[in-house]
Amino acid sequence: MIQSSKARQIILDACPQLGTESSDLASALGRIVAKDVVAHEDIPAGDNSGMDGYAVRSDDTSSPNGQVVLNLVGEVRAGAVYRDEVRAGESVKIMTGAPIPRGTDAVVEREQVEESDGRVTLKIPVLRGRHIRKRGEDIQAGKLVLEKGRRLRPYEMGVLASLGIEKISVHRRPEVALLTTGDELTPVGNDPAPGQVRDSNAVTLAAQIFECGGKVISLDPCGDDEVRLEEALRRGLSSDALISTGGVSVGDYDLVLRVLERIGVRIQFWGLNIKPGKPFAFGLHLQADRVVPVFALPGNPVSAAVMFLQFVRPGLMKMQGATPRETLSLYARLEGKIHKADGKRHFLRGIVGNESGQLVVRLTDTQSSGALTSLLQANCFIIVPEETREIKHGDLAEIELL
Amino acid sequence: MIQSSKARQIILDACPQLGTESSDLASALGRIVAKDVVAHEDIPAGDNSGMDGYAVRSDDTSSPNGQVVLNLVGEVRAGAVYRDEVRAGESVKIMTGAPIPRGTDAVVEREQVEESDGRVTLKIPVLRGRHIRKRGEDIQAGKLVLEKGRRLRPYEMGVLASLGIEKISVHRRPEVALLTTGDELTPVGNDPAPGQVRDSNAVTLAAQIFECGGKVISLDPCGDDEVRLEEALRRGLSSDALISTGGVSVGDYDLVLRVLERIGVRIQFWGLNIKPGKPFAFGLHLQADRVVPVFALPGNPVSAAVMFLQFVRPGLMKMQGATPRETLSLYARLEGKIHKADGKRHFLRGIVGNESGQLVVRLTDTQSSGALTSLLQANCFIIVPEETREIKHGDLAEIELL
Repeated sequence: MIQSSKARQIILDACPQLGTESSDLASALGRIVAKDVVAHEDIPAGDNSGMDGYAVRSDDTSSPNGQVVLNLVGEVRAGAVYRDEVRAGESVKIMTGAPIPRGTDAVVEREQVEESDGRVTLKIPVLRGRHIRKRGEDIQAGKLVLEKGRRLRPYEMGVLASLGIEKISVHRRPEVALLTTGDELTPVGNDPAPGQVRDSNAVTLAAQIFECGGKVISLDPCGDDEVRLEEALRRGLSSDALISTGGVSVGDYDLVLRVLERIGVRIQFWGLNIKPGKPFAFGLHLQADRVVPVFALPGNPVSAAVMFLQFVRPGLMKMQGATPRETLSLYARLEGKIHKADGKRHFLRGIVGNESGQLVVRLTDTQSSGALTSLLQANCFIIVPEETREIKHGDLAEIELL
Repeated sequence: MIQSSKARQIILDACPQLGTESSDLASALGRIVAKDVVAHEDIPAGDNSGMDGYAVRSDDTSSPNGQVVLNLVGEVRAGAVYRDEVRAGESVKIMTGAPIPRGTDAVVEREQVEESDGRVTLKIPVLRGRHIRKRGEDIQAGKLVLEKGRRLRPYEMGVLASLGIEKISVHRRPEVALLTTGDELTPVGNDPAPGQVRDSNAVTLAAQIFECGGKVISLDPCGDDEVRLEEALRRGLSSDALISTGGVSVGDYDLVLRVLERIGVRIQFWGLNIKPGKPFAFGLHLQADRVVPVFALPGNPVSAAVMFLQFVRPGLMKMQGATPRETLSLYARLEGKIHKADGKRHFLRGIVGNESGQLVVRLTDTQSSGALTSLLQANCFIIVPEETREIKHGDLAEIELL
């Protein structure tokens, strides 16, 4: 049995980064940037106005009697250019985003100006640069805009669009084979015979794989027949990654591990010092030109879902080229109390909320690792470290938002 | 100018809930449940074993000499049923998930038992119910499993799968027309002429709409020509919602509001006491059988993106039937300091991290509302309430995770 942090490191080290492909910007949401993006031009491309107002020469605006009258010689709106040079004593009406006319060096907002009969009257002196968005203020040509390994959110996409970048190099999305195993499983559409349960893992895990960018290759669910299991697992090894559920504990019919080893998967570890999820195995299948990671999850639905979040997701993100990032640990006051004595790291299902500026967390009604409903109520995990035996009412507990 | 909280309430009250449709479970990720889901059966369907071990009659296991020998009369694995009644002095080998044989009332984990020659030896007395997952322990028939208004995450989908529910009633996804306006805009693929900028809002907002469940109907970007603008906005009103950018401040060429009013949109408010994003308008177009909400965002890319998150997103979620939920407010120690005197609510872009158990937040390098790069660096907003004039170094600041 190994510790959670060690297991995660082994997975991150072992999962291979997939190749790259070119994606249209419009469909790149959520993809991982594969190459540093360096700006090839300044944004904004030239000085422009940050306000609706009047472009002026700042030298004109300081007057001993505190009032200045300027001739209004034209106007310029966004999308246009004022062609002439603005001379002393002159002003140009300007709209937000319009280029600053030559000769002017400040913009006075319209609320500060009276305009009548082709003249504008200013009551305040204006400093050079006022309300001017400078060329390159947002992005300078040559500057690193997006480092590789970043996930494209709408804002990253907007920045790329502002630079005119319509194609972007991203890592390939992994094809992830998913195989649920166990004689007790029956498809979701069937009425379970006595002793059977519907194969909910096939649904939960497919959604989890999709959420973190994978393409799901659903293999037909497999009973505990060794021959069929071997066939199915072999098929799974033609994908970029293979996830199985069930068949990894110490039961007589838990075959998955044995079969994985037989077909050449090198098990890197089996058994984690955590709860739920102890019987989790991670292996690698070395092929001529690539390595296929294999995640053998327990069949218990809560364990499988928690293991996925804690260990499979980081692996699949690494395959897509994402720079590993620590999840933001938060601390909340515990309502209730937690005891344990097994030396394991516990991922309890919690409900966190804000009470007058303080995060407060309580356990969901059930913590049974068979009860998927415990995840329904939950909006966070309460993480109880290996060595912790007790968290008292009112103590701070570490949480991880779901 | 109205306050942020008031604006959000107006939007939530006014946005209509869309009709419902039936969705396949497999493609329902992220959709909002439209009808309460009540369980029609117990999960688990019968008592089953929580461990690999031996099913026993607990009465058999308390012996004065502390050791009990039972006849092993059979075995049962997950997916099967042990047909006979287990009598006094007998035991059945059992796998995790297998139904508890009639007559037995506890499971002893295999680590606690020695098996040899058709007999098992127990060294500890066993309490009734040990390691048994009771029928209905997770879900009882008749119980409300998912209330309407909930968003389907992988776990909700797993619970529905475990109940055999393959079709689910969800609210329709809104078709959202998106119109970017302004003579300064040129398509992303073009080289901007002097004074022009690429239309990044079309990309950022389309991704934001998609992220919160909307289907984007991209209208051709529109200059400041009033006739074309009117045509485009009218077209947008055939969608479920209309979002425009630009043309809502006080500039002479800001036409959007005027045209919206002319085509019958009733402006509910214009101008918010916040920064960035002040010139934001919200209106309603009443049609024979429905109401179309109209969000007129400022053209500034940062303002538009922030306004979307704070005001449009809640509206679109309401249209999909989501129960409005408070975002979880967090507090972090400010590194640096913040001053303001304008009485507005500020949404500053921040970078939050964890330093020895304490959340610490600092401002991104630029706060210019023109600089979309400020959102690139950011992983949170720092929210500075209307009345706050100063947050000192080391003080707690409210943050909202991005």
